[in-house]
Amino acid sequence: MTISMYQASVPVFVKMLGNLSAILTKAQAYAEAKKIEPRVLLDARLAPDMFSLTRQVQIATDTAKGCGARLAAVDVPKYEDNEASFEELQARLAKTIAFLNTLRPEQIDGSEDRDVTIPTRDQPMRFKGLPYLLGFAQPNLYFHVTTAYAILRHNGLDIGKLDYLGGR
Amino acid sequence: MTISMYQASVPVFVKMLGNLSAILTKAQAYAEAKKIEPRVLLDARLAPDMFSLTRQVQIATDTAKGCGARLAAVDVPKYEDNEASFEELQARLAKTIAFLNTLRPEQIDGSEDRDVTIPTRDQPMRFKGLPYLLGFAQPNLYFHVTTAYAILRHNGLDIGKLDYLGGR
Repeated sequence: MTISMYQASVPVFVKMLGNLSAILTKAQAYAEAKKIEPRVLLDARLAPDMFSLTRQVQIATDTAKGCGARLAAVDVPKYEDNEASFEELQARLAKTIAFLNTLRPEQIDGSEDRDVTIPTRDQPMRFKGLPYLLGFAQPNLYFHVTTAYAILRHNGLDIGKLDYLGGR
Repeated sequence: MTISMYQASVPVFVKMLGNLSAILTKAQAYAEAKKIEPRVLLDARLAPDMFSLTRQVQIATDTAKGCGARLAAVDVPKYEDNEASFEELQARLAKTIAFLNTLRPEQIDGSEDRDVTIPTRDQPMRFKGLPYLLGFAQPNLYFHVTTAYAILRHNGLDIGKLDYLGGR
């Protein structure tokens, strides 16, 4: 057994996005049970200049599809970022997971030294595959999943660490 | 170039704990500038039943030292969990980083299949090295660093994603 670029990316992202989906399912049920307007949770944020729950989910999926695609050297799927309901966020998570599951280990393994370029408003960011995965994509993915979790915890949702970590 | 168990653990943890240290330095300066009692930030939490900032830092270091030690098959350093100031949290981060830096790649590489046991109040948790690293230690480390960041953002500290990600 060895550790590979594929193992450290696609299955990790698929699992965490699945956990996030299950957390959002609980959040939607909580909103329904408490008669909370869904937008209250979808727009919630931890500070006025932090992103909302909706945006956290969007960026988590962007990070996962971007990393998977770039390591596999295929086009990054483009989404419109117009989700406005729990159902639409769930659909975004599902299509991201479906895309990640199209990527095969042989496309990603050996990408440690692959050049990765991320367009930004300013200068594009340039990485090699390994530091991109370990120093950018993984910490970003976990950041946005954790922040989504924290927004919902802060708003009273009864979830715990195992919802974040998922089953083994 | 390949990805190894060492690369995916020790340098990642050292970097993230260093970033957390720099964030706490900013938090301490913020408390001083605003004449906020340090305990207000150290005891802050995002929900009544979530851990405080102090505990988030303690668990982040526990996760890092525990994972490094277990993968290297050396004893996990024991700490007393009695930090009550920014200085003491900084000392905890520094000694954790110093411990991680004693671990050599040759102790950790090849630990993908190593048996890892984590004592808990109930049944001990048992893993193989690779799923322990990717499915438990990494997500936990990022969870607690992100939550520490989120607690401080929620309390008005002017930090951004680059403080979390650190320099390249």
